[in-house]
Amino acid sequence: MALALAIHGGAGTIHRSQMTPALEAEYRNGLETALNTGYAILESGGTSLDAVEAAVCSLEDFPLFNAGRGSVFTHEGKQEMDAGIMDGHKLAAGAVAFVKNIRNPISLARKVMEQTEHVLLAGEGANQFADQIGMKTETDEYFFTEHRWLQLQEALAAGRIQLDHAKPIGTVGAVACDKNGHLAAATSTGGMTNKKYGRVGDTPLVGLGNYADESVAVSCTGHGEYFMLGVTAYDVAARIKYKGLSLEESARETIDHLTEINGEGGLIAVDINGNVALPFNSEGMYRGYRTSNSPAITEIFS
Amino acid sequence: MALALAIHGGAGTIHRSQMTPALEAEYRNGLETALNTGYAILESGGTSLDAVEAAVCSLEDFPLFNAGRGSVFTHEGKQEMDAGIMDGHKLAAGAVAFVKNIRNPISLARKVMEQTEHVLLAGEGANQFADQIGMKTETDEYFFTEHRWLQLQEALAAGRIQLDHAKPIGTVGAVACDKNGHLAAATSTGGMTNKKYGRVGDTPLVGLGNYADESVAVSCTGHGEYFMLGVTAYDVAARIKYKGLSLEESARETIDHLTEINGEGGLIAVDINGNVALPFNSEGMYRGYRTSNSPAITEIFS
Repeated sequence: MALALAIHGGAGTIHRSQMTPALEAEYRNGLETALNTGYAILESGGTSLDAVEAAVCSLEDFPLFNAGRGSVFTHEGKQEMDAGIMDGHKLAAGAVAFVKNIRNPISLARKVMEQTEHVLLAGEGANQFADQIGMKTETDEYFFTEHRWLQLQEALAAGRIQLDHAKPIGTVGAVACDKNGHLAAATSTGGMTNKKYGRVGDTPLVGLGNYADESVAVSCTGHGEYFMLGVTAYDVAARIKYKGLSLEESARETIDHLTEINGEGGLIAVDINGNVALPFNSEGMYRGYRTSNSPAITEIFS
Repeated sequence: MALALAIHGGAGTIHRSQMTPALEAEYRNGLETALNTGYAILESGGTSLDAVEAAVCSLEDFPLFNAGRGSVFTHEGKQEMDAGIMDGHKLAAGAVAFVKNIRNPISLARKVMEQTEHVLLAGEGANQFADQIGMKTETDEYFFTEHRWLQLQEALAAGRIQLDHAKPIGTVGAVACDKNGHLAAATSTGGMTNKKYGRVGDTPLVGLGNYADESVAVSCTGHGEYFMLGVTAYDVAARIKYKGLSLEESARETIDHLTEINGEGGLIAVDINGNVALPFNSEGMYRGYRTSNSPAITEIFS
């Protein structure tokens, strides 16, 4: 079977004008590290589930992306994180919403999948579960980054809820196909700067921001509310299953539909033949992929 | 255009042996009241959105169904409620998860749709939003029912998380088509008896437990985790859009798939021609419908 891994570090209005060569190199380094980490697992015969978890952990640990360390701040100056993971072969899923101080929310999502009868745990309850099973936590200082804090101050001054700073829209994700042709998807986010009222976006929700089954795995990034209304991640699967489209065609049609309903962002998808698709309708999307037929490639703009 | 309204009050293993004539009459009365309330709105030229909200408010106010008043108790002895509403014509949605003391969670979900830029608000944040807009609240005593409390004590003694008492699986919902052919769906629940860790089920989630677009509206009830994995509500829409199935065929195939993945429950669906489908794979589903072509009908068993 063909191996394949695709990752993203968020999509949105990434202006070339705001990107310096040094900053671009830093972003590419973050993407390459995650890609190499995940692909090494696939190459050594590991599962797609292990590969997407490891790739997303790497992206969560990297402070420039809006997930894990470096997450944006809520209106109250807190960092609340959402994450979802799905095992396509077993059609199993786990997710957490607005958890705090968990070093790797994606790993907590996997524990929800493997150690509970539930799919989605939220808030204090999810943190209680994390405590019980001994998940690794970090202090507020670990998650703090000055640029995110300044973004909150700007947003508070302007009275805006921001997806991510003028943007990129902040999410990270990974999809993979392993040697057995089994697929998995993982997606993680720090949410929206200055968000209030316990808003939950598409990231942790099955079929909305994250989805995997026996034929396709999808991870989304963008303005979450539109990905929810479009049932975006599952829509890619449905167009393949019910319309008979290829991965490429299906992913493109789904993003076209997102454009029609005024949603902005992108997605990454992989199928059992090791094909990858990375369409987006925003100015850029931090992304990368590597397959049996392609070396590691990272890109930011279209 | 044909008018149509369908409602449900939950599905699951409803044993005929446990149903007395007096209890059955009470359930039917609850269903008929909700059906008449919602259909009167459609008949007087009102919108499908108003009709499903009113029908679900009626079901929430009725203490025998697991939603609003009469909701089940969590492990900590609290009553936490989830609800989601969707306007198919506008492709807009609003939802709340584990809110407390809100008399009609479905009306709060509608306010999320109409007065915020978000789709889903959860926990204390959702209650804060409710306070700010002055939603009607009730005391704990209002929501308390002795039979739900006894169910928690039994579940605690047995160490089980229960969907609803031995069952029915508790959710309420409504779908409607109005004189303009506009569709809407609304779903509300008190969740699982003895649930822990901030578990969120399918009910408030777009495309999972509740969905409406320009061609179909769907409300689900059953073991929520399986409805999440099946992306059940949107799957009905996708089979119609992409496979060209009729409402009846699509709803049936979706429930067949639910059976394949070991999920138990049912759904109600309506299309723009006023067709209704009410398939389920459980022993019974509290349900009813009325259309331009059919008088009010309520049923419990298959």
